[in-house]
Amino acid sequence: MQDVQSAQTDLTAHANDAGPDPAARLSKMAGALVGSEILKIAAEIRALMGQGVPVCNLTVGDFSPKQFPIPEVLQQAILRALERSETNYPAANGQAELRQAIQRFYERELGLRYPLDSFLVAGGARPVIYGVYRTVVDAGDTVIYPVPSWNNNHYVHMCGARGVPVVCGPETRFLPTGDALLSELPSARLVCLNSPLNPTGTAISADALRGICDAILAENRKREQRGERPVYLMYDHIYWMLRFGDTQHVTPPGLRPEMARYTVFVDGISKAFAATGLRVGWAVGPVDIIKQMSAVLGHVGAWAPRPEQMATVDLLSDSKAIHAYASKFLQGLDRRLELLHTGFQGLKKDGLQVDSIPPMGAIYLTVRINPFGRRTPAGQVLQSNEDVRKYMLTDAGIGIVPFQAFGVPGDEGWFRLSVGAVSEEEIKAALPRLARAMQALT
Amino acid sequence: MQDVQSAQTDLTAHANDAGPDPAARLSKMAGALVGSEILKIAAEIRALMGQGVPVCNLTVGDFSPKQFPIPEVLQQAILRALERSETNYPAANGQAELRQAIQRFYERELGLRYPLDSFLVAGGARPVIYGVYRTVVDAGDTVIYPVPSWNNNHYVHMCGARGVPVVCGPETRFLPTGDALLSELPSARLVCLNSPLNPTGTAISADALRGICDAILAENRKREQRGERPVYLMYDHIYWMLRFGDTQHVTPPGLRPEMARYTVFVDGISKAFAATGLRVGWAVGPVDIIKQMSAVLGHVGAWAPRPEQMATVDLLSDSKAIHAYASKFLQGLDRRLELLHTGFQGLKKDGLQVDSIPPMGAIYLTVRINPFGRRTPAGQVLQSNEDVRKYMLTDAGIGIVPFQAFGVPGDEGWFRLSVGAVSEEEIKAALPRLARAMQALT
Repeated sequence: MQDVQSAQTDLTAHANDAGPDPAARLSKMAGALVGSEILKIAAEIRALMGQGVPVCNLTVGDFSPKQFPIPEVLQQAILRALERSETNYPAANGQAELRQAIQRFYERELGLRYPLDSFLVAGGARPVIYGVYRTVVDAGDTVIYPVPSWNNNHYVHMCGARGVPVVCGPETRFLPTGDALLSELPSARLVCLNSPLNPTGTAISADALRGICDAILAENRKREQRGERPVYLMYDHIYWMLRFGDTQHVTPPGLRPEMARYTVFVDGISKAFAATGLRVGWAVGPVDIIKQMSAVLGHVGAWAPRPEQMATVDLLSDSKAIHAYASKFLQGLDRRLELLHTGFQGLKKDGLQVDSIPPMGAIYLTVRINPFGRRTPAGQVLQSNEDVRKYMLTDAGIGIVPFQAFGVPGDEGWFRLSVGAVSEEEIKAALPRLARAMQALT
Repeated sequence: MQDVQSAQTDLTAHANDAGPDPAARLSKMAGALVGSEILKIAAEIRALMGQGVPVCNLTVGDFSPKQFPIPEVLQQAILRALERSETNYPAANGQAELRQAIQRFYERELGLRYPLDSFLVAGGARPVIYGVYRTVVDAGDTVIYPVPSWNNNHYVHMCGARGVPVVCGPETRFLPTGDALLSELPSARLVCLNSPLNPTGTAISADALRGICDAILAENRKREQRGERPVYLMYDHIYWMLRFGDTQHVTPPGLRPEMARYTVFVDGISKAFAATGLRVGWAVGPVDIIKQMSAVLGHVGAWAPRPEQMATVDLLSDSKAIHAYASKFLQGLDRRLELLHTGFQGLKKDGLQVDSIPPMGAIYLTVRINPFGRRTPAGQVLQSNEDVRKYMLTDAGIGIVPFQAFGVPGDEGWFRLSVGAVSEEEIKAALPRLARAMQALT
């Protein structure tokens, strides 16, 4: 390697010079793209913690490796894959061994028997979601998604699609029913579901999902007769292994096998195995859709790293290790969620304006904090979710995310609490701060 | 984890059922998207090798870890990162430590001093390319790219852009000059350059690149006066560390600092460190463009795995290890390329219809095999690059990629030979087979 050039060129000024019309520098799509609201809140919290303020950070849908490390079998298998020099390009649709391992895993754990060509590996669950959108949605197409939900608005924007958010409330645990989707279904290209649901920690019932499947099947029968393109269902069940109590996990093809023609699953190791940084996700769906999604994601280059792919083979093939890990993992999540839920219910009994919804799955608790119209010690009248979020952060040292970040309009006091990155001790220390902050309102 | 359902549901038939009109199932973009031509050829070769036929596989732009393992310092650093539990989400724009390490690396090795916000980490170089396109190119915008080049046609298609391929020939070592781009520049949003060039293994000269930069700067001065959006330069220099002999590597901002306002570099560890499967790439560019590319790629989810990111910090900070590795790596590549080049030149001297272009960089050799009109032992008259490719595979046991796969129209007998996955012995064994196959033509 020769010296490229001896002189140093300082490019700082040029790199910062966006010219007289900065807004005109980007594509229309990129220029109008909104960054993650959650990341903005997280940055605010990091700054506060940097000043030494104790904050119970319940904002980010991630894990602290100290609280929730990845499975030992997964870590050891990455080391072995590196020792075997699994360092060159993986197969474009994922290593065959991994696709086979996922195939066996789905048959064993979910009772779903799919052909091998139904499986596609990608660099996490996000690329899978993006791949589904780009593979079936054209600009101008209609995409139905319930809210609260995660980031569908951004994917709709990136495709130039027409997004139809369907607002779901606490009466259905924030999840949709077939009836709620019916009016828009005739114009839709894609319906997006997620269960257990980020941000609510609630799970769809068999009845509700059956209703949605039946509505989609009826619609597609009509379209097939008319020779029209079908409507698809993206079923993001990345949290399906994380369920509490007697919560059942249901799937569209498990309830209605014909739904396998129209359903693309979003899944991966990120949440079930606390491995958000290892970037291994997968899609399961109709063979033709999966094949073209592979071409789309191949050009995007959103591939899972090869050592992690090969290690995931070992993990998914070790049923005993998976269940031992899951049992301990779920216990840790459940204890944190129950501490918070019990804490909120106690404050509610004390007459404070809070509530919470029993946790069913994922790593989230839905809480309501709605002391609207009350005055803080600093003299501010709380009028919006954002007011409450800031008051919780500054006066209770608790970081939470308002449902607006998940597409819900209006200020009704609903928030997501995420427990993957906090200890039980941090929660126990935060609850009295919360009580005091609520009691301090006049 | 409870049983989800006890019954097994066999979904094979449904997953394979694309209905009466399969073409109507996909989005227009995905339906018209062409998969990688190189991967198709690679699959054909794998099938042949599976039958026990000896093939010198010069097709895929990848490495055999047996021939070219990743640096030991990189592998060890991944192990250490895993031991430190670097397994949760990386920062959306890449770990700060890695962006700082790349910043120092660029200053040290390339003489380019950029602010930290000019650096963005992604899951390989492909996502960076895709991110550049989506961040600056709108549907209908014009993208100029020289051919032969890699995959620009696909990225143009995915953006709904208007692609303007500029055919470059052997007289400029298949690289463009400013003059060649001038006529289309006034309508262009993006110009895509790659040097050292995949597929040719040749590098752009300072004069040619200076000419291109000056044309772009002149165009953008006009646009700035008129209040119009600028034209950008994507400068993919993923192979810049892989150069032979006295080949110099030049960069647009190194030659013309003002180009830092319009240039986005594509780079990563994939090629320079034989680490195609570890998925660590990066962009370097104007702060505003990089910021919004980060939002685009964050939603796409094309992030580099966190252990590999942290390990790349250790690698890039170890100048001594880098140079020791590069020296051995380059020697190995150079020996293979020179064996092939010398072999081809020998056959040319013997009067056979072949030629080759001296290798300057990357892992590729450009060769010409043009015995058009000649007859094979099986009685076929060779008329196209595809005829020659197949004859080389079946009768010489050599896998090569025609320049059509890189957007070059016409059959002039140009091919890419890639040496990352073969040993010197395989090349030595293949050359006599090539000679015999050429001599067998009548």
